Amino acid sequence: MTDTPFHEIPGAVTAPRGFRAAAINCGIKPHQLDLALVCSDLAATAAVTVTTNRFRAAPTYVTEEHAADGFARAVITNSGKANAATDERGWAMAREMTQLVGDALGLPAAEVLVCSTGHIGDLLPMDKIVGGMPRLVAALRPDGGEEAAQGIMTTDTFPKHLAVEFEVEGKSVRLGGICKGAGMICPNMATMLCYLTTDLAVPADLLRPALRAAVDQSFNCITVDGDMSTNDTVILLANGASGAAVTSADDPAYGTFCAALQHVTRELAKMIARDGERCTKFVTIRVTGAQGSAQARHVGRTIANYRLMQAAIFGGDYNWGRLAAAVGCAGDFIEPRLLTLTMVGITPWEKGRNLDFDLTEGRRRMTAPEISIEVDLGLGAAEGTVWTCDLTPGYVEYNAEYETSLFGETQED
Amino acid sequence: MTDTPFHEIPGAVTAPRGFRAAAINCGIKPHQLDLALVCSDLAATAAVTVTTNRFRAAPTYVTEEHAADGFARAVITNSGKANAATDERGWAMAREMTQLVGDALGLPAAEVLVCSTGHIGDLLPMDKIVGGMPRLVAALRPDGGEEAAQGIMTTDTFPKHLAVEFEVEGKSVRLGGICKGAGMICPNMATMLCYLTTDLAVPADLLRPALRAAVDQSFNCITVDGDMSTNDTVILLANGASGAAVTSADDPAYGTFCAALQHVTRELAKMIARDGERCTKFVTIRVTGAQGSAQARHVGRTIANYRLMQAAIFGGDYNWGRLAAAVGCAGDFIEPRLLTLTMVGITPWEKGRNLDFDLTEGRRRMTAPEISIEVDLGLGAAEGTVWTCDLTPGYVEYNAEYETSLFGETQED
Repeated sequence: MTDTPFHEIPGAVTAPRGFRAAAINCGIKPHQLDLALVCSDLAATAAVTVTTNRFRAAPTYVTEEHAADGFARAVITNSGKANAATDERGWAMAREMTQLVGDALGLPAAEVLVCSTGHIGDLLPMDKIVGGMPRLVAALRPDGGEEAAQGIMTTDTFPKHLAVEFEVEGKSVRLGGICKGAGMICPNMATMLCYLTTDLAVPADLLRPALRAAVDQSFNCITVDGDMSTNDTVILLANGASGAAVTSADDPAYGTFCAALQHVTRELAKMIARDGERCTKFVTIRVTGAQGSAQARHVGRTIANYRLMQAAIFGGDYNWGRLAAAVGCAGDFIEPRLLTLTMVGITPWEKGRNLDFDLTEGRRRMTAPEISIEVDLGLGAAEGTVWTCDLTPGYVEYNAEYETSLFGETQED
Repeated sequence: MTDTPFHEIPGAVTAPRGFRAAAINCGIKPHQLDLALVCSDLAATAAVTVTTNRFRAAPTYVTEEHAADGFARAVITNSGKANAATDERGWAMAREMTQLVGDALGLPAAEVLVCSTGHIGDLLPMDKIVGGMPRLVAALRPDGGEEAAQGIMTTDTFPKHLAVEFEVEGKSVRLGGICKGAGMICPNMATMLCYLTTDLAVPADLLRPALRAAVDQSFNCITVDGDMSTNDTVILLANGASGAAVTSADDPAYGTFCAALQHVTRELAKMIARDGERCTKFVTIRVTGAQGSAQARHVGRTIANYRLMQAAIFGGDYNWGRLAAAVGCAGDFIEPRLLTLTMVGITPWEKGRNLDFDLTEGRRRMTAPEISIEVDLGLGAAEGTVWTCDLTPGYVEYNAEYETSLFGETQED
């Protein structure tokens, strides 16, 4: 962090001034927090990205519609049911959730965004959401961000949040975020649920490209299981409560803000990969020598999603042949004679040569909790990094048990 | 089989006349058969398809080169080591294997095709192959086809073979095949190892399109784990020993031959899906209402490779929401409002409507050993079928243990 113009501070989406948040249990799940609200006390600009899954959930459409004008002030989320594959009844329920929050906060429903996460295909128990709303709104607090991070969890084992601070025009500006996700995590999508707030004033037409670029180098670079979800959404709200503002793309403060945003989204994304369902290892795949960063990330994702590679990492097997086979699937541009493969710092294949190496040492290094894979494509100067986890028997057992869905402790599944 | 112009008979690649085969243990693996040979006593035309993996094994290049003229008489295979990612030393070894067989059978090396399957990255123990060759050639028998099916096995739990008989010009003609494969099985490739023989005479320029079409509707329609292999190869030899011949694409016998070939390859492919590593269920995914058969198969493969779908099938979970999420990943052409989803004969989603259904009955049906999934895209009249298996904790455990590779009981891994 020493070279960056920002530094991390404790907190989450309520670290920036003028935001409040809360979470309660309204009865969708038996005991856990299952209804969360984040809101700005001031008018705020908004940017949103959502999943590209064609069976995407009703709330993703309502959220896109409500953020289309570039303004929004609140985000309501329920966990336990995804409100996906629920037909027009699901749309009506998503709209009703925004209306309930709008009425309680004295805002137009169009200023409220909505997300759901949990079991796919079930209609929402609207009576429980209606019943819980007064309690949720009454619980809103200027330090409720971490509670909201808990309220949006499904199979997550820890709440995921981060905040940073930086200076603009001598004023302290903050950016905070929360996110959730542990399974049904795959690239080529917007991301899992993630809410970001800042007290910098940023016009919506500058907020959107900043968010798109940040998501591209963070949530689009992680994979747990290669399975794209129906509900992924990232929301960024900027309310200007710091008194500082960005006015144009040339403003140096915009550069600082974008750098801070990239840092927060990347760290939150890594938390999701680290919390992959029943995983035991965190894996960083760095691809260099690519013709472009998109190509580098594509190769990284191909390796990350190769099941036999993920299974070998779980087993501590120094099975670099699976790495070669995975890279070979990435596309016609792959040239084994130009390639170099390195796993946990050992290089068994260098520019077309099969090298002798110390297999015992390789196996020893594979027992570490963090595994590094490096692939030099030998084609160009671009690079990219992808983060993932191992594939375990526990992941399969966990996702095979339908009881998990009965108790609502599920991702979109 | 009642409407087809062919019928199944016992046997394998030696069911057609003029073929012999054998397998021995030459010491690459501790006890199992690990060296297999199939050969024609007469000149034979040949067609070959190989994997599209860019890290493909040395023998796939040598086999393509030797079949380029449309003629070949023998196929030598070792299991235990894949001879992939082995650089130019691996190429020399693959060539040496064809030379050894050619010398022993009195054939030019260019008439011999070669395949390897097993652990990726290791050099072959050529001394063992050289040492075993005389014994292998001496063991060749006109009824050795089933033994050869055993000799090419890696993690397979049963040998895979099939033969059919049909009539051409009043003469009995036979077509037989053997194949192997249980893990690192994925579409968009040629296939796993499969050898097909016929005693019909078929010119090479008719043999190749017949094989391509047959592979497209068989091996390219199965997936076990979505992981494309480095060594996949299908070889078809036609030696004319029946006395019957196909002379042109308009010849009615060519149509009969193609139908028989499609049947044999499809049944062999289904055996591979049924033998998926540590799987417990066989899954048939039929996609109708597509704009083309390629689109239908693409949707089927997307569903088959969705890990959470495969895990739910293992667990007997009637989790149709995962089916919806999987279909939603298939592409922009997916329209939930036109779609109908059916799982084990129950329809929870019909043309955009979320339907009530009997969940208890759904769960009961999910306990069956064979699971059917039907997706009507509502876009057109084309259809396609994909076969797969469930994903089990055992699959991950099995592929996590590096001991498996030490004992050579592995796929290309």
